[in-house]
Amino acid sequence: MEKWQSLVADKRRRQQNAIPSAWLIAEPPKTVANVTSFPSECGLLTEKEVLITETVDINILLRKIAASEWSSVEVVTAFYKRAVIAHQLVNCLTEIDIPRAIARAAELDEYLRTHGKVVGPLHGLPVSLKDQISVKGLETTMGYASWVGQYAECDATIVEILYECGAVPFVKTNLPQTLLWIETNNLLFGRTVNPVNRNLTSGGSSGGEGALLALKGSPLGIGTDLGGSLRIPTAYNGLYGLKPSALRMPLSGVVSSIQGQDSVLSSLGPMANTLSGLKAFMEAIFSQEPWMKDPLVAPMPWSKARYELAEHGGGNRLCFAIMWHDGAIKPHPPVTRALTLVKDALTIAGHQVIDWQPLKHLEFSNLLNSIWSAGSREDFLEATMSTGEPILDSMELNAGTSGAGYFAKTTGTGAHELWKLHKLKTETRKDYLDRWQNTVQVTGTGRPIDAIICPATPSAAPPHGMNKYSNYTRVWNALDYTASVFPVTTVNPDVDIKQPPHEFSNSLDKFYYEMYELETFRGAPIGLQLVGRMLEEEAVLAMTKIVDDALKVVPTHKL
Amino acid sequence: MEKWQSLVADKRRRQQNAIPSAWLIAEPPKTVANVTSFPSECGLLTEKEVLITETVDINILLRKIAASEWSSVEVVTAFYKRAVIAHQLVNCLTEIDIPRAIARAAELDEYLRTHGKVVGPLHGLPVSLKDQISVKGLETTMGYASWVGQYAECDATIVEILYECGAVPFVKTNLPQTLLWIETNNLLFGRTVNPVNRNLTSGGSSGGEGALLALKGSPLGIGTDLGGSLRIPTAYNGLYGLKPSALRMPLSGVVSSIQGQDSVLSSLGPMANTLSGLKAFMEAIFSQEPWMKDPLVAPMPWSKARYELAEHGGGNRLCFAIMWHDGAIKPHPPVTRALTLVKDALTIAGHQVIDWQPLKHLEFSNLLNSIWSAGSREDFLEATMSTGEPILDSMELNAGTSGAGYFAKTTGTGAHELWKLHKLKTETRKDYLDRWQNTVQVTGTGRPIDAIICPATPSAAPPHGMNKYSNYTRVWNALDYTASVFPVTTVNPDVDIKQPPHEFSNSLDKFYYEMYELETFRGAPIGLQLVGRMLEEEAVLAMTKIVDDALKVVPTHKL
Repeated sequence: MEKWQSLVADKRRRQQNAIPSAWLIAEPPKTVANVTSFPSECGLLTEKEVLITETVDINILLRKIAASEWSSVEVVTAFYKRAVIAHQLVNCLTEIDIPRAIARAAELDEYLRTHGKVVGPLHGLPVSLKDQISVKGLETTMGYASWVGQYAECDATIVEILYECGAVPFVKTNLPQTLLWIETNNLLFGRTVNPVNRNLTSGGSSGGEGALLALKGSPLGIGTDLGGSLRIPTAYNGLYGLKPSALRMPLSGVVSSIQGQDSVLSSLGPMANTLSGLKAFMEAIFSQEPWMKDPLVAPMPWSKARYELAEHGGGNRLCFAIMWHDGAIKPHPPVTRALTLVKDALTIAGHQVIDWQPLKHLEFSNLLNSIWSAGSREDFLEATMSTGEPILDSMELNAGTSGAGYFAKTTGTGAHELWKLHKLKTETRKDYLDRWQNTVQVTGTGRPIDAIICPATPSAAPPHGMNKYSNYTRVWNALDYTASVFPVTTVNPDVDIKQPPHEFSNSLDKFYYEMYELETFRGAPIGLQLVGRMLEEEAVLAMTKIVDDALKVVPTHKL
Repeated sequence: MEKWQSLVADKRRRQQNAIPSAWLIAEPPKTVANVTSFPSECGLLTEKEVLITETVDINILLRKIAASEWSSVEVVTAFYKRAVIAHQLVNCLTEIDIPRAIARAAELDEYLRTHGKVVGPLHGLPVSLKDQISVKGLETTMGYASWVGQYAECDATIVEILYECGAVPFVKTNLPQTLLWIETNNLLFGRTVNPVNRNLTSGGSSGGEGALLALKGSPLGIGTDLGGSLRIPTAYNGLYGLKPSALRMPLSGVVSSIQGQDSVLSSLGPMANTLSGLKAFMEAIFSQEPWMKDPLVAPMPWSKARYELAEHGGGNRLCFAIMWHDGAIKPHPPVTRALTLVKDALTIAGHQVIDWQPLKHLEFSNLLNSIWSAGSREDFLEATMSTGEPILDSMELNAGTSGAGYFAKTTGTGAHELWKLHKLKTETRKDYLDRWQNTVQVTGTGRPIDAIICPATPSAAPPHGMNKYSNYTRVWNALDYTASVFPVTTVNPDVDIKQPPHEFSNSLDKFYYEMYELETFRGAPIGLQLVGRMLEEEAVLAMTKIVDDALKVVPTHKL
């Protein structure tokens, strides 16, 4: 047994031991693909625990805790139980430490009893964290067997702020080895699967969060997004998520791959079953002035005026631009149907909808590949070399470790060459901004377009190992635009008929076309993105609410 | 004659031809070191032109133009004349195009006559530009002979905005070869010298702006600052200047060295003879929403509340921290005296003043050296290789071209190694922020310190080739903090007596100690820095005004 393998064995044993035997379930047979109803039906949760965990609006949870109607201990226990059930179904957790969370909840309950007021805006609320986010005293393994035993000495800034807000960080969640994949699998914890259909991916890299939230094992999760890592699992699991611009949320103490790659910065954001949960999270974090704690955060408090769309005509008559196709990979029929649903709903609601012509998306994609791979191989090797841990070649079920993986190929890009890539990226961002601005001539609102609406990926969650295209999301990282994901519909084989082959732009376009078989995707969620400008978090949330509300009046049969 | 030499000859000839013979002066002999009174006394300027150009408050200039008391043509002509005189004294200009500026001014006058209102907040005002800033139709040589003939196809975004504001960009100004020097000399245009004493440097890299403004050849200049390039010439020429944080001002279309080095971004800011000029510039630029034109600019409008110090207790009782010494190079006696003057003035004005202990300044300096030199050699060679133009080894009077220059040594840093430097820099920024925050325990204001006051450099402007230390400024670039420079005093040999040798921290500390001979620096300006947090431009300007006003009540004999 190689060193890394003994570390895996040790960690898995400790993770298993962290689960009380009373919370173990009889896992449904692998042939049961959809496990979404299992948690509430398995009998392990009391009626009240089902009620608590199915209260998806975190504002209601917070009000009930603040009113001492439900105690934080009750709420945290209910979600912890459900998270552990979820874990046994889809393998979504990394760190499990029940006594710590219960003790914290008890302290909060005691504070409320004694002082008659809450500690902060998230008082008593359990919050799940992607494994990258350091919590003092817990391991931060980031899916590397080689990092087993690396206990964090400090809380990440976001965790510090969550504590100040009165939240209860309670579990950490799974992610792919090296992070730079859009599925979730690693040699330490294994693969996270999609609760709607366990043969499908939960997406990645925040795939543990996505699967956990879909099973209502957490009311609020925190993911990160360098190229779609928050948005893709959000879309694949029928959730709401927000990828802020890079300098809006604190990343201090969040470990990552290729750290120090300062050209395209990762960003941290919320994922939840409701849109209001995202807003509650953002407002809470800003209430603690994160720019006083993290040197990279811009001093921009939450702006009520921006949420009221002061810069977008008050939101009364917006102009959205829909990007139907990025010119590289044609979206599957249910994705196009979702875009049509949104277009119709917005039109009915009195907004303008025009088409968006993508500009140099492929160039952005190539630039990101070149920038990220400039030093990624060395980064991966450095992370794993001490234990002989191999690097996965892919996210396929029987992935090899030949070193042929996506970002493991390139080596030895020099600084000067890298700078040229950065420079070209900045220039291309200027071109993109100019295109956005120039729409002022066609919107009819006196403003340029207010937001872009586009697919999050070309498909619903694909079968394991087949999720190969992320440029519907990562182009917005290259631009550092704010983007939300919101659920629109699910794949309905009765209407989402496979189309005759189109002229394929490239081999991946053909791969995606061939992948689309109706039964594969039946019932899988389809989410879309709403994209605003850089640092427009408030406006993006407000405009997402406008779209979400507009969709609510669409007749159910169309969904 | 090598290719680069013929380009130099061509460019110099064209530059000379751009000056009307009526504007040529009989240059005072080289033995006349101080030329500051020459422009007003040489007889070339009319009385009115003297009056106009000595109206250092740009708000007055703007009001007089707006009231048609002075025409823009008059104002532009007066400043252009004086700029050309200045150029003949200190060699500060690169691009001279008088007809273009006069034509623009005439258009503005015509607009005002016809419409009865100004085009924008800078209507009719001449503005000088550091040579990096592209102006459509003019060459952007950046001091490289090799770039002669590179005519800009577009205006830089800042120029576009200046036009929208009604300004008249009228000259471009000199800078050092490669930009990465804190003096101003290149093989194309030669050396810019200090108007107070032509044996001293004007500083760099925005040394052309510094010398021009000191001679009142421009009412408002724009410099850039990657490591002190705006602030050092500001200090050495007795001016006011503001280095914003990197994402506040637009840099699109501003050419630079080591472009694409995305870890420590250059920033662009104003230089002027008055503090109110800086504020007028910032407000004008923000009025045009630069974030709609430059993809890297944060959407932060000018904030009146922040200028009124809403986040600093309304400015009534501030706590400043003075850094007397950065632990590496001991400031010369007049610099320390300037700090004492400021301390006394602020104390009299009712503010708190404590000492600032620098944290890891040397580490920041070393990191910046390593980051910038990671690809700088390739960058310089690429810029010059087509013409055989040599790279200067130093800013000394008879500098060689052996390739031993400051940033020309290293080569071949790989991306992964570079990322480690970036990562360490971000972590060190976190440490610095924490130290700042922790001062809340000692300020007595209930807040952490409001700003740091410190030297801009260890000395007044040194003799040519001897300006060797920039870490009093560049540490703030590493931190991306906002910093202003303001004038405090001039070197007075009667009081600024050389001290006995201290224990030298390093050989450069000894070099600076030995450099300090009273007569060398007599009368040279001493400016200091006021440093705020990241993106605190409004507050830094407001606090600089508080310091500036406090200094006005210091008895003149102490200055």
